[in-house]
Amino acid sequence: MAAVGEEVSNKQIILKEYVSGFPKESDMVMKTGTIRLKLPEDSKNAILVKNLYLSCDPYMRIRMRKSEENYVEPFTPGSPITGGGVARVLDSGHPNFKKGDLVWGRTGWEEYSVITKPENVFKIQNTDVPLSYYTGILAASGAVGQLVGQFAKLLGCYVVGSAGTKEKVDLLKNKFGFDEAFNYKEEKDLEAALKSGIDIYFENVGRKMLDAVLVNMRLHGRIAVCGMISQYNLEQPEGVHNLFCLITKRVHMEGFLVFDYYHLYPKFLEMILPRIKEGKITYVEDVAEGLESAPAALIGLFSGRNVSKQVMMVARE
Amino acid sequence: MAAVGEEVSNKQIILKEYVSGFPKESDMVMKTGTIRLKLPEDSKNAILVKNLYLSCDPYMRIRMRKSEENYVEPFTPGSPITGGGVARVLDSGHPNFKKGDLVWGRTGWEEYSVITKPENVFKIQNTDVPLSYYTGILAASGAVGQLVGQFAKLLGCYVVGSAGTKEKVDLLKNKFGFDEAFNYKEEKDLEAALKSGIDIYFENVGRKMLDAVLVNMRLHGRIAVCGMISQYNLEQPEGVHNLFCLITKRVHMEGFLVFDYYHLYPKFLEMILPRIKEGKITYVEDVAEGLESAPAALIGLFSGRNVSKQVMMVARE
Repeated sequence: MAAVGEEVSNKQIILKEYVSGFPKESDMVMKTGTIRLKLPEDSKNAILVKNLYLSCDPYMRIRMRKSEENYVEPFTPGSPITGGGVARVLDSGHPNFKKGDLVWGRTGWEEYSVITKPENVFKIQNTDVPLSYYTGILAASGAVGQLVGQFAKLLGCYVVGSAGTKEKVDLLKNKFGFDEAFNYKEEKDLEAALKSGIDIYFENVGRKMLDAVLVNMRLHGRIAVCGMISQYNLEQPEGVHNLFCLITKRVHMEGFLVFDYYHLYPKFLEMILPRIKEGKITYVEDVAEGLESAPAALIGLFSGRNVSKQVMMVARE
Repeated sequence: MAAVGEEVSNKQIILKEYVSGFPKESDMVMKTGTIRLKLPEDSKNAILVKNLYLSCDPYMRIRMRKSEENYVEPFTPGSPITGGGVARVLDSGHPNFKKGDLVWGRTGWEEYSVITKPENVFKIQNTDVPLSYYTGILAASGAVGQLVGQFAKLLGCYVVGSAGTKEKVDLLKNKFGFDEAFNYKEEKDLEAALKSGIDIYFENVGRKMLDAVLVNMRLHGRIAVCGMISQYNLEQPEGVHNLFCLITKRVHMEGFLVFDYYHLYPKFLEMILPRIKEGKITYVEDVAEGLESAPAALIGLFSGRNVSKQVMMVARE
C-alpha cells in the first residue's frame, strides 16, 4: 500500500495508433510511468483515483478510429485508453468527492488516474452488490443482450436470443431464462430461423442479422437500434438490403444512446437493485485479472471470446 | 354513347408476363374485347363502371412481380392491369351504389370494368374540384412529394425538395413554394449538398439518397418511409450503408402504408378541399389522353418523364 503523496509506479495501457480493420493486441502497449498519490495544490475540480475495475465494451472499437461521424470522442494515440470503471478516490479537489469515496464512470486504463473533469464520474451509494457491477449492469453498459432479454421476460415477452457459441446459447436458455436461443453462426438460413415472426428486435449486430430480421418483422413491429458490432472493424460499413420491409411491415426503427437517458438513472437503480438482490435478474461477468490482461480482453470481444460482460480487475483493495 | 344492355367494344391494357428489370411498353398489350353494359341478374354486390380517369403510380411496378413479400397483390398476367381510377357507375348490384354515381378507387385499365367486390371503391361527394384529383391528391395517392412539401410548408417547416430535372426543380420552387430545391442527378456529392442538416426526411427514393440523408440527419431527426422508387426495377435490393447514423443521431425511422389510415379520409377531405379551392395547396397533373397512352405513361414514371402526377383520361363524359 502506497502512502499518500508518495510517488509510485503506474502501469498504463496505451493505444499506439488509430486502428484500421480487426484490432490486435499489439495495437496497444503497456507502459509503466510514475504518479504522485496526491493532487497538486492548484488542482481545482480534479480527482485522483485508484482504479479497481475497468470495463471492456464493443463501442471502444469505434474510439480507436478517427472519424468526424463519431458519437464518442476518439482515443488519443500515445495516451492511456479511457473507458468505464470503478475506482477509489485517493485525493479530491472537487466539492462532490472526498478521499475514500467509491466512484464509477469514465476513467483510464491504468492503475491510478487523475480525472480532471469528473462530470462523468458518479459516487457509488450502494455497496451491497459486487462493485464490478458498476462497470456494467449498474452503469447501463455492456453485455446488453443478457439484460435486455431478462427485462423483456419481466415485461411478459416471449424472448428469443441469438449468440455465437453453444455455451452462450445454453447460458441464455438455462441461466437467463430466455424462451429460446440459437447459434447464429450455425444457422445456414437466418431468414428461415426467424420465420415465426418478430414483434420487437433489439439490434446490436447489424447487416446480415438485420436483413434476416427485417424480412421477418411482424406488422407494426419495432426495432431498437443500440449497436452494430458486425461493422466496427470495417473501414466501410456494409449494406443493409431489406429496408423496404420497413414500409410493408410498417416498422418503427429507432436508434438511441445512453447519454440521453442519464436523468433516468436513479429510477433505473431503484428498479434494478432489488431485482439483483432477489435474484430476479441474473448478471454474469467474465473477469480478467490484472491490467496486463486488458488488451487481450478487449480484442476478445470481437472474436466472441468473452461469454458475458467483460471486466478487468485492476486491483483488489 | 352506348345504350344500356348493349354489347360494346372494351379496350383493355393487359400485362403479358411478370417483369424483371426495367419495364418496357411491350410488357403490356392493348386488346379489344366486348362487354354488355348491364350486369347479369345474379351479380350481387358487383358494380359495372365506365372508367374516366386512371392513375399511374410507382408502386404498380411492384405489382408486376410475383413475390411473397408484396404488400399489394401482384397483377394477373393475361388480365387487365388494375389500379386507382375515377369512374361512372352504369349498373349496380351493390346497395351502396346506384346507376349514375361517380366513384373513385380500385378499377381496371380498360374502358369498362365489372368490379365484383367494391370494398375499395368510394362514392365521390364533392364534384366542385377536377374529377381527376380523385386519382391523386384526393385519393391520398401519387405525386406525393409535391404535396408533402406543401403540407410541411403549411406546418411551418423550411422545405427542401429533390427532383431529377431542372423543370421539376423550378416547379418545386416557383409553383409549390418550396424554400429550396436541387437536381439530385446533377449533384456530384449528395452528402455535401445536404450538409445543412435535416430534421425530417420524407423517403420515397431509397439507397444513395437515403445514405446521403442518414449522414446529414440532425439529432433526434425523423424519417417517414413511404417508398423507394430507386429499387422497384431491381431484382435484388441494393444496400443502405449508413444505418449506424440511426444510433449516433438517435433517428426515428418508420414505414407506413396508406391502408392503415383510411379511417382518417373524411378528416383529410375536410382539411384538403377548402385548401385546394382557396389555392393554398397547388396540385399539378400530367394528363395522357386515351387508354392506348397508358403503357408509355406507366413506364415514363421510372425514367422521370412525368413532371407531376401522371393520370390517363380514358373517356370524356
